Amino acid sequence: MKKVPEPTIRRLFCYYRCLKNDKSDIIPDYVCSDTLGEKIGIKPTLLRRDLSFFGHMGRKGKGYNKNKLKIRLEEIIGLNKEWEIALIGAGNLGKAILSYNQFREMGLYITEIFDNDLDKIGRKVNGYLVKNVKFIKQVLQEKGIKIVIIATSEDDVEGIVHQLKKTNIEAIWNFTTAHIDLGDDVIVVKEDLCCSLGSIICNINK
Amino acid sequence: MKKVPEPTIRRLFCYYRCLKNDKSDIIPDYVCSDTLGEKIGIKPTLLRRDLSFFGHMGRKGKGYNKNKLKIRLEEIIGLNKEWEIALIGAGNLGKAILSYNQFREMGLYITEIFDNDLDKIGRKVNGYLVKNVKFIKQVLQEKGIKIVIIATSEDDVEGIVHQLKKTNIEAIWNFTTAHIDLGDDVIVVKEDLCCSLGSIICNINK
Repeated sequence: MKKVPEPTIRRLFCYYRCLKNDKSDIIPDYVCSDTLGEKIGIKPTLLRRDLSFFGHMGRKGKGYNKNKLKIRLEEIIGLNKEWEIALIGAGNLGKAILSYNQFREMGLYITEIFDNDLDKIGRKVNGYLVKNVKFIKQVLQEKGIKIVIIATSEDDVEGIVHQLKKTNIEAIWNFTTAHIDLGDDVIVVKEDLCCSLGSIICNINK
Repeated sequence: MKKVPEPTIRRLFCYYRCLKNDKSDIIPDYVCSDTLGEKIGIKPTLLRRDLSFFGHMGRKGKGYNKNKLKIRLEEIIGLNKEWEIALIGAGNLGKAILSYNQFREMGLYITEIFDNDLDKIGRKVNGYLVKNVKFIKQVLQEKGIKIVIIATSEDDVEGIVHQLKKTNIEAIWNFTTAHIDLGDDVIVVKEDLCCSLGSIICNINK
């Protein structure tokens, strides 16, 4: 299979969510790329190209079988199983991430919360006990958690990365501005809110 | 000037922030693309290509004059002036966005908060009075606000978009999963957290 570009991988989730949330039965079995694309705001040509990476999924003149496409996307993304995720940072951003219902609806569960702030450790946030980040290795190993969200201040990242190096995690979702590198075996995705807002301003400013 | 790709525009902000936060005086005037790139986790070739869109900014063998580059990026992005932003949605996500210090440090100020929830309207969040979204046209016009952040539930978006159509806004930063289209004159940037997490899982699952 050809290497799938990152933007395509991101859009797969949009297609999947749209099919999952689709309660309409006007077109019961099939959906064409025009209809599906319009719902998400993606051009049908791009949608067809994205899906073509994974073999011939559509039928000429009919479009995509909605249920088959949903199940196939579920497999490709990995949403045919549930995922446990650990969150580091029990501040405002951490709480917002924790209360984001969409994750749970997709089978993505934040089940552990850590912080390094002694005022937060031992307290409950959204019903979850905030644990000391220095115990993260042990907890992640016991639970088999492979994904960690970092939603702390940039200053705390160095200490956290030090703890994470001892674990077997496979991915970090980094909400801080710090650059994190744990080698080639750990995927790091940076969610840089300032860059998004900066790009909006740059586009207005042009 | 050649059309600047969106990923380049996003990275400009990273370069700018790195230079702005740089307190080191080891290399007092100049920084090479290797050093600047390493700090942010971006390959020097990509950094040089990004900056080449805006003319010759570096000096062969010396690199970039840090102060000049910072000022030039400030102008390109539009950070040589302050920006007022309105936030719609005073829930957990709205509060997290509001308390995100990085925005203020870059001269980006959220100065108005709206909601459609009668329980939230009239209350204060982080010192700001939550206003009824039905008065948004009037408030944005008075303050000359051009950027709106939507951090509500998907169900509320239709009503909000109805209100926003009456305004002269130029950009929407959309944190909901809803697809928003206000025509070619309004930039809409979607911050789809589920797509990010979905792409992480897809990459682990491969």
